[in-house]
Amino acid sequence: MSDTSAVETLTNLVADDLQAVNKAILERMQSPVALIPQLAGHLIAAGGKRLRPMLTLASAQLLDYQGDKHIGLAACVEFIHTATLLHDDVVDKSDLRRGQESANSIWGNEASVLVGDFLFSRSFELMVQADSLKIMEILSHASSVIAEGEVLQLITANDIETTQSSYLEVIQAKTAQLFAAACHVGGLVAGSTPAQEDALQSYGNNLGIAFQLIDDALDYSAKQAELGKAVGDDFRDGKLTLPVILAIARGDADEKAFWKRTQEDQVFNDGDLEHALNLLNKHNTIDDTVTRAREYGDKAIRDLDCFADSQAKAALKGIVQFCIERAY
Amino acid sequence: MSDTSAVETLTNLVADDLQAVNKAILERMQSPVALIPQLAGHLIAAGGKRLRPMLTLASAQLLDYQGDKHIGLAACVEFIHTATLLHDDVVDKSDLRRGQESANSIWGNEASVLVGDFLFSRSFELMVQADSLKIMEILSHASSVIAEGEVLQLITANDIETTQSSYLEVIQAKTAQLFAAACHVGGLVAGSTPAQEDALQSYGNNLGIAFQLIDDALDYSAKQAELGKAVGDDFRDGKLTLPVILAIARGDADEKAFWKRTQEDQVFNDGDLEHALNLLNKHNTIDDTVTRAREYGDKAIRDLDCFADSQAKAALKGIVQFCIERAY
Repeated sequence: MSDTSAVETLTNLVADDLQAVNKAILERMQSPVALIPQLAGHLIAAGGKRLRPMLTLASAQLLDYQGDKHIGLAACVEFIHTATLLHDDVVDKSDLRRGQESANSIWGNEASVLVGDFLFSRSFELMVQADSLKIMEILSHASSVIAEGEVLQLITANDIETTQSSYLEVIQAKTAQLFAAACHVGGLVAGSTPAQEDALQSYGNNLGIAFQLIDDALDYSAKQAELGKAVGDDFRDGKLTLPVILAIARGDADEKAFWKRTQEDQVFNDGDLEHALNLLNKHNTIDDTVTRAREYGDKAIRDLDCFADSQAKAALKGIVQFCIERAY
Repeated sequence: MSDTSAVETLTNLVADDLQAVNKAILERMQSPVALIPQLAGHLIAAGGKRLRPMLTLASAQLLDYQGDKHIGLAACVEFIHTATLLHDDVVDKSDLRRGQESANSIWGNEASVLVGDFLFSRSFELMVQADSLKIMEILSHASSVIAEGEVLQLITANDIETTQSSYLEVIQAKTAQLFAAACHVGGLVAGSTPAQEDALQSYGNNLGIAFQLIDDALDYSAKQAELGKAVGDDFRDGKLTLPVILAIARGDADEKAFWKRTQEDQVFNDGDLEHALNLLNKHNTIDDTVTRAREYGDKAIRDLDCFADSQAKAALKGIVQFCIERAY
C-alpha cells in the first residue's frame, strides 16, 4: 500500500463526517475580531492531513456510531492540535509551517500566542458540548499533558545527557497523548466497552509514538526535503531526538565533543549538519529509529485485534503503515 | 472605609474557603516537570489579592452555600487569570509583575507561553470537576472572550483613532468577563434563581469594568509608583486607554501630533511622559476616567439590591469601594 492511498482510503471512508468537521472548524474559529479567523485560517487552511480528527471519526465508525457528537469532538481535537502548533512555532521561532510562512512570522509572536489561547478556549467550548464528563476529563487532561510535554522538551533541549526514556516521555506527552485521546473519545462517544476503550486508547498511543519517531527521523532525512520541509531543524535548535541520542551513546570522545559543541553550546561551523548526518549514518541511528517506530506501529496494529474486520479497521491499520512509510 | 479594610473584610469573611482554594491551587499546579510549579509558583506566590476567586467564594456565601464545589471553581478562576497574566507579560514584553521580576524575564518567553498553556488546561480540568454543563459553558466561554479581548487590544494598540466604544469592548472582554463569570458560577453552584444569577453576573461585569478603568487611570498616576509599579507602561507600549482617548479627542492639532508621534509611530523623546501627564491633567481625563469607574461601581452596588442584607453582601459592596478608592 503506498503512502497516499492509506490516507486517501481513510479520508474517503470518513468523507461526509470530515466535511462536517471542516464546517464546524470554520464556524468555531469565527470571531468579530477579524485577525482571529485570518490567523487561524492561515494555519488551518494550509491543511495538514486532519489526521487526528480523522482518528476520532474512524474510531467512532469502527463501533458503527450513528450519532453526530463525534463531529464536535473531532473539531475539538484539531483545535487543540492547531493551538499547540501556533505556540510551538513561537517557542521554536519557526519561520515555516506546512511549507508556508508560519503565522508568527507573518503576524508576530504576540498574535500567535493570543490566537492560540483563543483556539484552546474554543476547544474547551467544543468538548463541553459533548456533554460527557468522562470525555471532557480525557480531552482536558490530554491538553495538560501536552503542555507538560512541551515544557519537558524545552528543558531537555541542549542537554546531550538526555536519555532515551526522557525523550520517550516527551513524545508520549507532546504527541501520543492527543492521538490516544482522539481515538479514545471517538470510541467512547460510540459506546465502546471498557476493553474496546482500552484498545483504542492504546492504538492511538502507539500510533502517536510511531508517528513522532518517524517525524524525528525525517528531520535528518533527504525525504524531508522532498516533503517541502527544511532538513536539520532539530539539529539547529539543539532538540535532542532519538537519532542523535543513539549517536551520542555510540560515539567516541571526538564525536561527543562535536555533539556537545553543536547541541549544547550551540556553536556551529560550516559543514556541521553534513557531519552530523554522517555520524547518524555511521551509527545507523536513522534506521534504528525507524525500526523502533515500526515496533510501536506493530503494537498499534495488534491493539485492533479485538475489533471485527471492517473498512474502518482496515483504514486504521493502513494509517499505521502510512505513518511508518513516510520515512521512505 | 479604607482600601485595606474592604479587602480584609472580604478576606476574613471567606478565610476558611480561601485557605482551601490556596491548597487546591498549590496541588493543581504540581507536575513532575519541576519548572512548571517553579514558574507558576513564582507568579502565584507573588500574591495578588486573589480578588477573582474571592468573588466566587463570596457569591456562593451570599446564597448561603454549604457545599464545597465553589473551592475548585475559585481555583479554576485564579488559574485562568494566572495563565492570562503569563501570556500578557510575554505579549507586552513586561519585566515586572506584582513588583517582582516577571516570569518571562526570569525563565524566558518560551517557558511562560507553555506554562500558561498548562495552567489553562488545568483550569479546564478543574471546571470539569464541577460537573455542571452550564458552569463549564460559562467558564470556557469566558476564556474564549478573554483571548478575543486580548487580540482586540493588540490590534487597537498604536491606533490613535481607537474609539471609546472599542476601548470598552476590550476591557469588557479582557477583564470584566472573568469577574462576571467568577460571580456567576459562585451563584450557580449555590443554586441561584435566574434573577440572582443575572444580578451576580451583572455585578461582576460592572465591577470588572470599574476595576480596569481604575487600573488604566492608575497607570498615569503617582499613586501607581506608591504601589511599586512603573508609571506610564501603557504610554510606552502605545496601549490606548480611556485617559489618552479622551485627551486625544479634546486636544488641538499640536497635541494630536504629539499623540500620533508617541502612540502611533512610537517615537519618544526625553520628557514625553511628563508632557503626556500634563495633557491628561489639562483635559482632566484621569478624573473623568475615575468618574466613569465610579458610575460602573454604583451600578455594581445596585445589582446587589435583590439580595437580603448579609455580611457577604456588605463585603461585595465594600470591594466595589476598594476598587474605586485604589485611585486615591
